[in-house]
Amino acid sequence: MGVAATTKIVPPGLTPAAAKDALSQLVDLVYDDLQDCNRAIVARMDSPVALIPQLAAHIVAAGGKRLRPLLTLACARMVGYRGARHVQLATCVEFIHTATLLHDDVVDESLLRRGLASANAIFGNKASVLVGDFLFARAFQLMVEDGSLKVLEILSRASATIAEGEVLQLVTQNDLTTTEDRYLDVLRGKTAALFAAACQVGGVVAECPAEIETALSNYGMNLGIAFQLVDDALDYVADQAKLGKTVGDDFREGKITLPVLRAYQNGSEAERAFWRRTIEESEQTDADLDEALRLIAAHDTITATLDCAQAFASAAKQDLATLPASPIRDCLLAVADYTVRRAN
Amino acid sequence: MGVAATTKIVPPGLTPAAAKDALSQLVDLVYDDLQDCNRAIVARMDSPVALIPQLAAHIVAAGGKRLRPLLTLACARMVGYRGARHVQLATCVEFIHTATLLHDDVVDESLLRRGLASANAIFGNKASVLVGDFLFARAFQLMVEDGSLKVLEILSRASATIAEGEVLQLVTQNDLTTTEDRYLDVLRGKTAALFAAACQVGGVVAECPAEIETALSNYGMNLGIAFQLVDDALDYVADQAKLGKTVGDDFREGKITLPVLRAYQNGSEAERAFWRRTIEESEQTDADLDEALRLIAAHDTITATLDCAQAFASAAKQDLATLPASPIRDCLLAVADYTVRRAN
Repeated sequence: MGVAATTKIVPPGLTPAAAKDALSQLVDLVYDDLQDCNRAIVARMDSPVALIPQLAAHIVAAGGKRLRPLLTLACARMVGYRGARHVQLATCVEFIHTATLLHDDVVDESLLRRGLASANAIFGNKASVLVGDFLFARAFQLMVEDGSLKVLEILSRASATIAEGEVLQLVTQNDLTTTEDRYLDVLRGKTAALFAAACQVGGVVAECPAEIETALSNYGMNLGIAFQLVDDALDYVADQAKLGKTVGDDFREGKITLPVLRAYQNGSEAERAFWRRTIEESEQTDADLDEALRLIAAHDTITATLDCAQAFASAAKQDLATLPASPIRDCLLAVADYTVRRAN
Repeated sequence: MGVAATTKIVPPGLTPAAAKDALSQLVDLVYDDLQDCNRAIVARMDSPVALIPQLAAHIVAAGGKRLRPLLTLACARMVGYRGARHVQLATCVEFIHTATLLHDDVVDESLLRRGLASANAIFGNKASVLVGDFLFARAFQLMVEDGSLKVLEILSRASATIAEGEVLQLVTQNDLTTTEDRYLDVLRGKTAALFAAACQVGGVVAECPAEIETALSNYGMNLGIAFQLVDDALDYVADQAKLGKTVGDDFREGKITLPVLRAYQNGSEAERAFWRRTIEESEQTDADLDEALRLIAAHDTITATLDCAQAFASAAKQDLATLPASPIRDCLLAVADYTVRRAN
């Protein structure tokens, strides 16, 4: 984990309420662009094959946070872009994200336990995979329309990195010997690579200097890691129904995340036996989730995970430090803190 | 089906043995290119995540016919290309095809009956989907390296069309009211679009005139439709173990193909009830495949399907008629016939 793991939470400069506002503030700052992007999302996921927009609408138009396209829109405007290309490229970013979500929800034969009405639960695995493929291909069509080989390079590389991260996650599943470095590689791939690309593309359309482009990419990467660490913490925090997540999904799937890794590493021999049975051997009873939550609380590994997330959020803020102050820049700084604060 | 359905088989100008040689002859004509392409396939599917080349090797390096990349290589050389870009683009075409195969094998919960050791049977649905995503993304990275927006346009459009065709196939599954036009739309999408793109890209790297590019694309489209029609016929032809296919896969999945559609349309009321039970309601016993084969033989719908395939093969040959005669062109003409003849 290096530096990150040893860094303590930066004392919050904002109250939780103000911090919670950061994302809404960002939406306000690029409101018209986001509306255009939402319209483009609906318009461009269309197809003569009716099931495609139907299934896509279930996930893409259901109104997620649009965090990734928002980053593209905000970064472009922050560095002075005055055109409209960023709207179409933000749409590409959202389509790639949606394709990933659809493919991520594909269930293996051995893992039919999840109970949520994901697209694959309603439409079947195969339809989810194929509509994901369509959105992925459509994203590249939109990039070709835009015509920038540099954007195509950034987003095709990010797409390959996402797939690598997802496969690495599959490989580390059920494996408690996974190192924290390897776990971070999973986060960089499956989540942060697209955050980084989303931000960088905003800089590319603005034709900003190389060092600014790098700063944007680094900001996205650190923000994405912080975001996923918080997500992994929230999976073990009760009463998070408002976030649309079921507590314990990761546990049931035997996913290796920091709250579990730390609880395992710091656990007694009996506790380690518990984790080996439930995570490595996938032998779980209904009572096991409660025991897992108890051990995670006993070792305070949610706090450790959020500390780690805050270190990456602080690094993200540092990445934007050299950029001139502006409403959007200041808002992106606040968004980094908000990403961590949403767990409190 | 229009013209195609009413056209009779063109009397073969070659004996079956000579026709069978057409594909090997084509391989000989672009042998060095194909070796380069095979090397590029192995080199470029690599990843630090070891499961990716492992799973990809299972399908991509297992040595398929390489028909699609072969078309790119052959078309480029046929129209006079002297460079090496076509090798990398042929690799893209094979990666897109492989990604499609991996995703095509994803099994729905309700369809766990197939018994073949496909990648998803060995590695799981999820790994197959994710490695498919990786190969798809990698294909676009290779196109970006090549740097032609026109190639990117052709192959991103083809990729979207493939996904549309696959979804349309899913929608028409189990539906005996599917029209033959709609069935042909499925073939155009899921198979022929990539054949067309593979051929066209060969022309694009050679910077050939627009009408030649169109001729190549049309050849690929007609060849692809013929190829898939034959594939759909072979699914009901016994003793095709040598082709690596199990007889009756399509039947068990309730796929709507021409042999079944015609047998249903021409069947007695009792026969139509049989098809409705087995295909529409997916109620099948072990003896039903034999009955299906008997009805298909009684109505001679394999011949009808191959007649239709031959009409498209002939159209493919016609598409190349205006090109100057050359060893490669003549071989591509023979390949069109071979595509149909392999069923005899």
